[in-house]
Amino acid sequence: MPEMTSSQKMAESWSFLDTFESNFTPLVVIELAKGTKKETIEWFTKRIVDKKANGGAQLLVKPLVTEKGEETIYLVGASPLRLLLGAETVGLVKECNDNSMRTFTYSSRKTFRDFADDNHNFLTMAECQYIIKHELENLRAKDEKMIPGYPQAKLYPGKSIVRRLLTSGILVQIFPLHDREELKKLRHSWYGRVKVGYQPLDEIRCYFGETIALYFGFLEYFTFALIPMAVIGIPYYVFAWEDYDKYVMFATFNLLWSTVILEVWKRICAIMTYRWGTLLMKRQFEEPRPGFHGVLGINPVTGREEPVYSSIKRQIRIYLVSLPFVCLCLYFSLYVMMIYFDLEQWALDYHEENESNFSSLMLFVPSIIYAVVIEIMNRIYRYAAEFLTSWENHRLESSYQNHLILKVLVFNFLNCFASLFYIAFVLFDMKLLRQSLATLLITSQILNQFAESLLPYWLQKRHKKRMKKRMSSLKTDTDLTLVEQINLEKEMGTYFGTFDDYLELFLQFGYVSLFSCVYPLAAVFAVLNNITEIYSDALKMCRVYKRPFAEPTANIGVWQLAFETMSVISVVTNCILIGMSPQVNALFPDSKMDLILTVALVEHLLLAIKFIMAFVIPDKPRDIQIKLAKLEFESLEALKQQQMKLAAESLKE
Amino acid sequence: MPEMTSSQKMAESWSFLDTFESNFTPLVVIELAKGTKKETIEWFTKRIVDKKANGGAQLLVKPLVTEKGEETIYLVGASPLRLLLGAETVGLVKECNDNSMRTFTYSSRKTFRDFADDNHNFLTMAECQYIIKHELENLRAKDEKMIPGYPQAKLYPGKSIVRRLLTSGILVQIFPLHDREELKKLRHSWYGRVKVGYQPLDEIRCYFGETIALYFGFLEYFTFALIPMAVIGIPYYVFAWEDYDKYVMFATFNLLWSTVILEVWKRICAIMTYRWGTLLMKRQFEEPRPGFHGVLGINPVTGREEPVYSSIKRQIRIYLVSLPFVCLCLYFSLYVMMIYFDLEQWALDYHEENESNFSSLMLFVPSIIYAVVIEIMNRIYRYAAEFLTSWENHRLESSYQNHLILKVLVFNFLNCFASLFYIAFVLFDMKLLRQSLATLLITSQILNQFAESLLPYWLQKRHKKRMKKRMSSLKTDTDLTLVEQINLEKEMGTYFGTFDDYLELFLQFGYVSLFSCVYPLAAVFAVLNNITEIYSDALKMCRVYKRPFAEPTANIGVWQLAFETMSVISVVTNCILIGMSPQVNALFPDSKMDLILTVALVEHLLLAIKFIMAFVIPDKPRDIQIKLAKLEFESLEALKQQQMKLAAESLKE
Repeated sequence: MPEMTSSQKMAESWSFLDTFESNFTPLVVIELAKGTKKETIEWFTKRIVDKKANGGAQLLVKPLVTEKGEETIYLVGASPLRLLLGAETVGLVKECNDNSMRTFTYSSRKTFRDFADDNHNFLTMAECQYIIKHELENLRAKDEKMIPGYPQAKLYPGKSIVRRLLTSGILVQIFPLHDREELKKLRHSWYGRVKVGYQPLDEIRCYFGETIALYFGFLEYFTFALIPMAVIGIPYYVFAWEDYDKYVMFATFNLLWSTVILEVWKRICAIMTYRWGTLLMKRQFEEPRPGFHGVLGINPVTGREEPVYSSIKRQIRIYLVSLPFVCLCLYFSLYVMMIYFDLEQWALDYHEENESNFSSLMLFVPSIIYAVVIEIMNRIYRYAAEFLTSWENHRLESSYQNHLILKVLVFNFLNCFASLFYIAFVLFDMKLLRQSLATLLITSQILNQFAESLLPYWLQKRHKKRMKKRMSSLKTDTDLTLVEQINLEKEMGTYFGTFDDYLELFLQFGYVSLFSCVYPLAAVFAVLNNITEIYSDALKMCRVYKRPFAEPTANIGVWQLAFETMSVISVVTNCILIGMSPQVNALFPDSKMDLILTVALVEHLLLAIKFIMAFVIPDKPRDIQIKLAKLEFESLEALKQQQMKLAAESLKE
Repeated sequence: MPEMTSSQKMAESWSFLDTFESNFTPLVVIELAKGTKKETIEWFTKRIVDKKANGGAQLLVKPLVTEKGEETIYLVGASPLRLLLGAETVGLVKECNDNSMRTFTYSSRKTFRDFADDNHNFLTMAECQYIIKHELENLRAKDEKMIPGYPQAKLYPGKSIVRRLLTSGILVQIFPLHDREELKKLRHSWYGRVKVGYQPLDEIRCYFGETIALYFGFLEYFTFALIPMAVIGIPYYVFAWEDYDKYVMFATFNLLWSTVILEVWKRICAIMTYRWGTLLMKRQFEEPRPGFHGVLGINPVTGREEPVYSSIKRQIRIYLVSLPFVCLCLYFSLYVMMIYFDLEQWALDYHEENESNFSSLMLFVPSIIYAVVIEIMNRIYRYAAEFLTSWENHRLESSYQNHLILKVLVFNFLNCFASLFYIAFVLFDMKLLRQSLATLLITSQILNQFAESLLPYWLQKRHKKRMKKRMSSLKTDTDLTLVEQINLEKEMGTYFGTFDDYLELFLQFGYVSLFSCVYPLAAVFAVLNNITEIYSDALKMCRVYKRPFAEPTANIGVWQLAFETMSVISVVTNCILIGMSPQVNALFPDSKMDLILTVALVEHLLLAIKFIMAFVIPDKPRDIQIKLAKLEFESLEALKQQQMKLAAESLKE
């Protein structure tokens, strides 16, 4: 095979990369389990530093000798040249001198803006760490049948070594190192200043990567987008407006507005990710996720040997086990809700019969019990959903994530909103609806902020103090030695991605839009919450958790769909609510039928307008469209040139 | 610029293509206007045969000397080698020896199935003609400021010469030549046999290209898909079932079925176009459409000088002129409909008052007048829509087509269905609805078949006879000389694309699905019509019209969306119809409200199920997905190899 020889040739030319250099900058930390066998460590570190030609990653690695002399922590870095070549491998897109964005290649490096051969400020630290993670994960077994020293940890050719080490518990964790200096600067410009302003999204992206920057971008955008709703909602509260026509206006505005903001977000997202280069990044070929297992077979796509799992078996698991289970859980959750309403009624009756301090306290008991039960159910369900989704044995991480998100989303939606739906459309009690909505919204916001950021922050601070005391020297953050810093960071909690943050926003969007015409003040609370949310989430990222690996992304993915679905559902609910209001009912004194028909007509019209609007508003702004078309044109032209050249060459032979 | 010199070098290497060869096969006919100046003809033919290096198309061209000695008709052909290089330029995708589909390149030609250097049976005749059309259209002005001999026909660098010649009337037409032998074979296997079977879609594709084959494929698929509906519909007619539950069952089946067939069509379409190679064909960069005009400026995408027209001006024209005009036309059409209903009422009254033979004849007059008026309105509107869309000055043919289709679709939809909607939802007259539906469906089908195929066929036949008489020798088709064949073909009508054929199917789908629960027999008529439609359309393509140029396409485009929209609307109409039926009303004797609420609930459930089904059914079958993933994986791997090679090379320097 001619490819093999040429690739071998190539690999040899990588040998210019010296494995050890004088100016070693640690970027990523590897923590091995205590008591890992010597031979395993030797084999693993050799593979990391080994030349590409020998199947290594050609990175730099250094053991960190702690006080006890144990060698379980290793620092990984890379030479500037190695990082540039890695940037090409992962397909980073960077800005050129002519302001266009192009896929970085080492051979054309001089045409890129701010390029310097020593890689000073060209690749961000987050990008460097992403490259190293990518290279480590792509360390693949050659002819090893198992991990040396651990015969039970089997390998097959092409299996990612790091993933096998992780699943067999030899590798405890891999995490990128914080940069104390940069973090301090970021903290200052993010939430350290008193002055209110936009978040430094570009800086966040440089430090934490695109996924997290995009979350904060969405949070900020969403907050701004809610302001018009909040501003319109305030007078309803202040003047206690109860006219139906004002409610209709507010609800109509809300519905169209929520469509507009979701469409405009796509445009803003495109602008941001174009600037960051991720909009243009080619999708990398996805490897099987770590937990995926199956019989060793031939992958029909790559032709490589890897575990294969029948898609029909997976479908059976999804539709015959997971789906019924989810339905059962939903039913159970509804059942619990009905018990809650019974309890509530019982408490009310009790209070009316024997009025006392005790009985008025009793009034709160059902709500408290229900809130606690919901929380417990949510947690148990989350575990169950994770177990089931992993049991479904998805080959790709992305498909695993989508199935998990769908499961969790449906259940959370029902848990949060079922009682409100019941109050609105079965009990027809608008006063209770407004009250419940307010209670749910405000308590969930306060609880979330506490449980998510402040509590971990406090715990982390206490832990840090204890650590520092143990080190018997109270230094400021920047004075810490590397050993101390690593020891601090490796004990920090792990940030498990933006899932919970988006989920919170999604439920908030539900509170704001589903029943907006009953409780216009919801938007005000949402805005207030989101402003503090930005600060507490920033605090969480910078202070509480280990630094997460950067993850390039071009959009908020499945969440866009989730928000759009919510806004469709909210059209239906709002139309029904307006139809049920006594003011509208008074307009149709003679016939309920006309009322319902009118409501149904309006609802269909609004839905039609929504879909047309979503269709008419382009997903990308015109200038981004032109830039993308230009790139496509250039690549087509280049292809044409290349084809003509090849044809000419082949004819000369 | 190094690219320029290398491209010049390349172009020179094309010189091996001899401009004239002994075995010249005419593929395409060019007809110039009578009295075209000599210098223009010389210049144009020189450009066609000229070497690529000199900006020519490097094709073969031959004048056809007719009896009168006038040279207005030219035959264009190309050497086999030239066609293969052209196939590479247009990016044809062909099957390889290992059964995979790959973009054809001349250098890898040996790896393709059935390849032979003399191009025997490798490229189909339709593909060859498409290549020649593409090459002719890409003949571009260099430094000519105008067409020689016609100072008013201005040119600018990069302007397509053929398009300018066409718009200035010097070029009358370009059309591909029929292949009498092949056509005879095709006719035989298509509609010549008595035995009923599938259409020879692959043969149709080879002869007429993918767009037309896909239309016939869709027509056939749609007919098969309607059969279950028709089969279920027959007993309703035979046993005169009027039970509401049977109607509900039928309507529910219809709604879900129509979703399924539209989703499954995407899969079948993917299978077909994968086999034909168009699914994998890269989108070519679109040039401005012939009618596009503007101030000469720089195209921001290509950087070339070409007419530029501000997008804001176009938006203003669309939203401030076209949109109001369309709305006005819709209003006018509704107004005419109301007059029709008044006339109808008047005729009925007249008949009741003085009953006579004359008065019962008078009953039919309003319908006839209305049918004629609708036909006239449709035609006038079509012209207006074409004028407006062309006045909107779209840069791309595809965007012109989409705007035209949208305009025509909305108006036709209203014209065909407004009266039915009025009868159903304003007059609440189910009997009249059934009757009108039947009348409209059947008459429109008969009229269409007559006006579209049989009439032109008869005219064409008469014309041919006269021509043959003039040539004073009655020969069979295959014995015609080339001159006679061309003289016959150049007078044949031009097939203006599949628009009207799809429109007919779209309206038929409306008749079948919108009111399916009132008139289950509609599907039966649709099936019967479509079976004859296949034959009459086939006749039309083979006998009546000039051969059209093949147009590669991967799907039915905007029609998929149109059909899907129709099936969403039909959910709404069917739910309302069922809700209005007396049997369902009898179920809710006490409260109309419960009835309407139930209907609304069912409608929303059905819509939700529709969307979930559309989401869950994958658009491409699994094996096609795997094949596409394989190709993507291969190209990613190749890119990686190439990058590593380049990096290694650049480091050696």
